[in-house]
Amino acid sequence: MSLLVTGSIGIDNVITPHGQVEEVLGGSSVYFSFAATQYTPVRFVGVVGEDFPPAFRDLLVSPEIDLSGLEVRKGSKTFRWSGKYVGDMAQAETVDIELNVLAEAAPKVPAAFTDSDVVFLANTHPTLQREMLAQVAAPKLTVCDTIDLWINNERASLIETLKAVNGVIINDAEARMLTGSSNLVTAGKGILELGPNFTVIKKGEHGALLVTTDGVTVVPAYPTENVKDPTGAGDSFAGGMLGYLAAGGRFDTASLRRALVRGTVSASFAIEDFSLRRVMNVTREEIDVRVAELLDMLRIE
Amino acid sequence: MSLLVTGSIGIDNVITPHGQVEEVLGGSSVYFSFAATQYTPVRFVGVVGEDFPPAFRDLLVSPEIDLSGLEVRKGSKTFRWSGKYVGDMAQAETVDIELNVLAEAAPKVPAAFTDSDVVFLANTHPTLQREMLAQVAAPKLTVCDTIDLWINNERASLIETLKAVNGVIINDAEARMLTGSSNLVTAGKGILELGPNFTVIKKGEHGALLVTTDGVTVVPAYPTENVKDPTGAGDSFAGGMLGYLAAGGRFDTASLRRALVRGTVSASFAIEDFSLRRVMNVTREEIDVRVAELLDMLRIE
Repeated sequence: MSLLVTGSIGIDNVITPHGQVEEVLGGSSVYFSFAATQYTPVRFVGVVGEDFPPAFRDLLVSPEIDLSGLEVRKGSKTFRWSGKYVGDMAQAETVDIELNVLAEAAPKVPAAFTDSDVVFLANTHPTLQREMLAQVAAPKLTVCDTIDLWINNERASLIETLKAVNGVIINDAEARMLTGSSNLVTAGKGILELGPNFTVIKKGEHGALLVTTDGVTVVPAYPTENVKDPTGAGDSFAGGMLGYLAAGGRFDTASLRRALVRGTVSASFAIEDFSLRRVMNVTREEIDVRVAELLDMLRIE
Repeated sequence: MSLLVTGSIGIDNVITPHGQVEEVLGGSSVYFSFAATQYTPVRFVGVVGEDFPPAFRDLLVSPEIDLSGLEVRKGSKTFRWSGKYVGDMAQAETVDIELNVLAEAAPKVPAAFTDSDVVFLANTHPTLQREMLAQVAAPKLTVCDTIDLWINNERASLIETLKAVNGVIINDAEARMLTGSSNLVTAGKGILELGPNFTVIKKGEHGALLVTTDGVTVVPAYPTENVKDPTGAGDSFAGGMLGYLAAGGRFDTASLRRALVRGTVSASFAIEDFSLRRVMNVTREEIDVRVAELLDMLRIE
């Protein structure tokens, strides 16, 4: 099935205990796309400013990524994010953020993309998420992410977006904030009551929780000592999960559970190096080996 | 195989967002014993003061718990702990602690217990842990727990204790403190370098990690909305794990992994009610059902 993603494209500065990078390509839809193309081609919709380096556009060029939805907007500036991770790197500390073009009108979904089957609305203003979704004719699976900013400041609009999607992929702190419940199983069920058929709660180094009306599944993170930069882990998780689901074309609970493992493994590679380095060069074989290892670890007889 | 436990026996006061209890039976070896006796009888060694209520001793009376190592010391007072849990209840806040008899000489291991096969040294001063261990002739499996107090103030003695045991069951914050490593896989391996053959790191609602020279296994916590009082969860975990191991008599990695699931399920019952209420009344059938559910949840094809 065809897979469309829309979200941020950014220029990042990141500092972690293991080093730092300056002026590198980042953004939710970018991490998502590289993870998803391990399984299926991606239709990419997003907007950058005229300052977007041609070298970054070149990084996105791939037979698996259709860039016809990438708008370079005259007179606008690209989204920028500077962040820092300390200690166990569980939480990013935003040092500086410039929304720039992300605070303007949403990009247009190209006519050739309006028949997309699977749509991932990476984090952005919930009203823009609905505007993007409205441009797709008859999607079979729609999933969104969101962040604390919209939960706190645009709750009414976010609730409307949640009514319009089939699934939510969100992190633990945000799930608690959205529902007011500290228990993550209760939080996941609370989100189902807002509309979606499934909730995935990402817990960073502690793995991820899938809540459906069938029950709850927990998958631990792939245990690794090699964590250099958590930036993009959540978006890579979503990319691995939805890329796998779009490739398979089935969205029942058993498929969601298998996809949860795929997302977990995509995230485990993303954190092994700065920026997109590892997400871009990991092979499908490396992914399949790690999926098998994780499933073996979980198979206790 | 025979199983000996020694640790604290206490009188607790606990407040959580779901209620409170005053002057109830608690202590690490008590939670451990009730969890372990689901699988095998327990030889109990511990000391209380003359203020220890007879009704609490009656609670411990069971065909499965041999109390001949329970000393009631004249002129001494029983250990007391008052704690509070707030928010997501991930960490206990100690409101008041009176070591009392725990600050005095260790209890004696009865002659009939010196041939014990499996020994669990629940948290106490690491020097006392070694003194207790020295009284057992030829144990086949020895495991200890510890807390921040000894890691910070009695590190040299703790290192000696770690050289003397086969395994460690410790919580995540303590594993990080002991090794100086924020990454839990690295922390688990760091503990192996101190002597033990296996490390279990308890992560509360996020499950537990087993690190051996064979590799790493992660088991998520049993997902539940019903969390009333986390007191004793870690000790119940250890009780379920070691009770199961002692009953089976095998300590290879495959057995440790199965035991990890048993510990996880014991902890999931302990937190469902205040004090020992749920740990004491749970049936083996209820435990086996939940073990099957957890294994099913992890079996992703």
